[in-house]
Amino acid sequence: MAGTEGTVAVMGAGAWGTALAKVLADAGSQVRLWARRPDIAAQINQTRSNPDYLPGFIVPDAVHATSDPAEALDGLTTVVLAVPAQSMRANLQTWTPHLNGGATLVSVAKGIELGTLMRMSQVIAAVTGFDTGQVAVVSGPNLAAEIAAGQPAATVVACTDSGRAVALQRMLNTGYFRPYTNSDVVGTEIGGACKNIIALACGMAAGVGLGENTAAAIITRGLAEIIRLGVALGAKDTTLAGLAGVGDLVATCTSPHSRNRSFGERLGRGEAMPQVPGSAGLVSTTGGHVVEGVTSCQSVLALASSYDVEMPLTEAVHRVCHTGSSVTEAVALLLGRRTKPE
Amino acid sequence: MAGTEGTVAVMGAGAWGTALAKVLADAGSQVRLWARRPDIAAQINQTRSNPDYLPGFIVPDAVHATSDPAEALDGLTTVVLAVPAQSMRANLQTWTPHLNGGATLVSVAKGIELGTLMRMSQVIAAVTGFDTGQVAVVSGPNLAAEIAAGQPAATVVACTDSGRAVALQRMLNTGYFRPYTNSDVVGTEIGGACKNIIALACGMAAGVGLGENTAAAIITRGLAEIIRLGVALGAKDTTLAGLAGVGDLVATCTSPHSRNRSFGERLGRGEAMPQVPGSAGLVSTTGGHVVEGVTSCQSVLALASSYDVEMPLTEAVHRVCHTGSSVTEAVALLLGRRTKPE
Repeated sequence: MAGTEGTVAVMGAGAWGTALAKVLADAGSQVRLWARRPDIAAQINQTRSNPDYLPGFIVPDAVHATSDPAEALDGLTTVVLAVPAQSMRANLQTWTPHLNGGATLVSVAKGIELGTLMRMSQVIAAVTGFDTGQVAVVSGPNLAAEIAAGQPAATVVACTDSGRAVALQRMLNTGYFRPYTNSDVVGTEIGGACKNIIALACGMAAGVGLGENTAAAIITRGLAEIIRLGVALGAKDTTLAGLAGVGDLVATCTSPHSRNRSFGERLGRGEAMPQVPGSAGLVSTTGGHVVEGVTSCQSVLALASSYDVEMPLTEAVHRVCHTGSSVTEAVALLLGRRTKPE
Repeated sequence: MAGTEGTVAVMGAGAWGTALAKVLADAGSQVRLWARRPDIAAQINQTRSNPDYLPGFIVPDAVHATSDPAEALDGLTTVVLAVPAQSMRANLQTWTPHLNGGATLVSVAKGIELGTLMRMSQVIAAVTGFDTGQVAVVSGPNLAAEIAAGQPAATVVACTDSGRAVALQRMLNTGYFRPYTNSDVVGTEIGGACKNIIALACGMAAGVGLGENTAAAIITRGLAEIIRLGVALGAKDTTLAGLAGVGDLVATCTSPHSRNRSFGERLGRGEAMPQVPGSAGLVSTTGGHVVEGVTSCQSVLALASSYDVEMPLTEAVHRVCHTGSSVTEAVALLLGRRTKPE
């Protein structure tokens, strides 16, 4: 189709989708940004801002927002999927008829699908029928607000098709955003799916008043269980020692801007676990943002169990979020393990 | 010698030596704490506090301080060496005649000796003539003030003699301090020697106003170069993915209480690099504390170079601390690398 060369679709106008639209525009692409809510799309086009999800930043003129998925996708060969993990399948079922058959589909969703226990790239390939080589994953220490502010950051672009990985790398490369290619899609996805759970654990520990040594021990033990799961699924441990593993884990666990960490802190300070009826455990904080770790701990724990992988931190977070354990019990569980070799 | 069973010497009454004396006492040992300055020893014995190095904490009654190394060491079979890395050799030369020949010598110093490029355990074995199996290393995410406050923390006790490692583990095990044994002395030491350099880099980035994504990228790339060096020296990469590697690195790089990070921040905000004449590059901040990363980057870089290991972050920190580069130049160097596979 004429006129679509150099145009990219970003499906999802949350904080990360909006920030990525800005990165793509800054790197030279035209961007069609799909927002579920028509009022958000209109606001972006009229005011060049998305105050509900990414307050304080200007959306470049090269970004055109729409709430019509057909309009967003029509003829494009690069499609970034920036919707929450648990809504990926339903969204893709609607979008698939509008996809260009040769397109690269780029997942930036972080999580494992409840029930099926599939990674996002698996869900995407299964729903669309696309080759796995057409599915890429972008993940790394990328707090959206900092990227929108042009702060330097690095990320991983993972795809089994190295040509597509390099093409995406070029499309995302700006002075402030540095993508590194990797062929390990599994490792890149597992890092992203698990880090929010460990961030919840770090937040809980901070909320009950524990300090930096405890946080560092939780991050280290969290990394160990993430590596165990990743390797069991076929990931490379070097991927999980890299930006999509350690990097994203550290940023999410230590940043005061991390939603998952902040939510864990609130639980740690004694707030009750809120429940949203009928949402399969999804819990919202202010502004409609989803705390993905609360859902992820269910699917990650089930996935780990099916591969006989022990994930004691994930289990402790799961107990607090889903079976009524107190944070104090969970933290004692985490710290009370007997002395043994590392 | 009678009456010395269950007594441990801690040689060095800085923040970490004093906190470790408290841990050992809390775990049931009598402790002889050697302080270089007689006034510090007297103050600890008279006031049960060490306000110059560990303000705000009570030193248990089971800790007896002395400035006489012969009195501290006499007859003891466990000796913790808690002096700065660059003074380890000179101190040990004085202390060796007083050491019990069968003793376990425990290094908690972090660094590589300038000139010889030896790890602390190597310096200890060389100066004392003790078997390497008698030399242990304790290292992990252990900010002294938090440990003194009884905050939960974990650490690594590394020794090639597993019997000594387990004995030390028991001696250091309290409700709040959890030691894990490891046979990889090299990895445990390399993690400790390198982390302060990366903390300086993180501080510099924060000082010039960069955020959490940048810090996470620096920590990840720092870990990668630490693993490269460690593996070249014979360490296990799993040690460096554990408490003595990732754990200590994260705590030191993210804590506002880290001296090295704070010093890097001051440099990043534009303060000039202070110089202490005749100190071989040692730089003091307030209170006589040593910023070990400033010295470590010299010896670590030389060690890496002798093994043909690239350490770009360490090199950038070295440029700022020792060859007059500006922090802005160094940060640009760190972030300006070309896009490539991870």
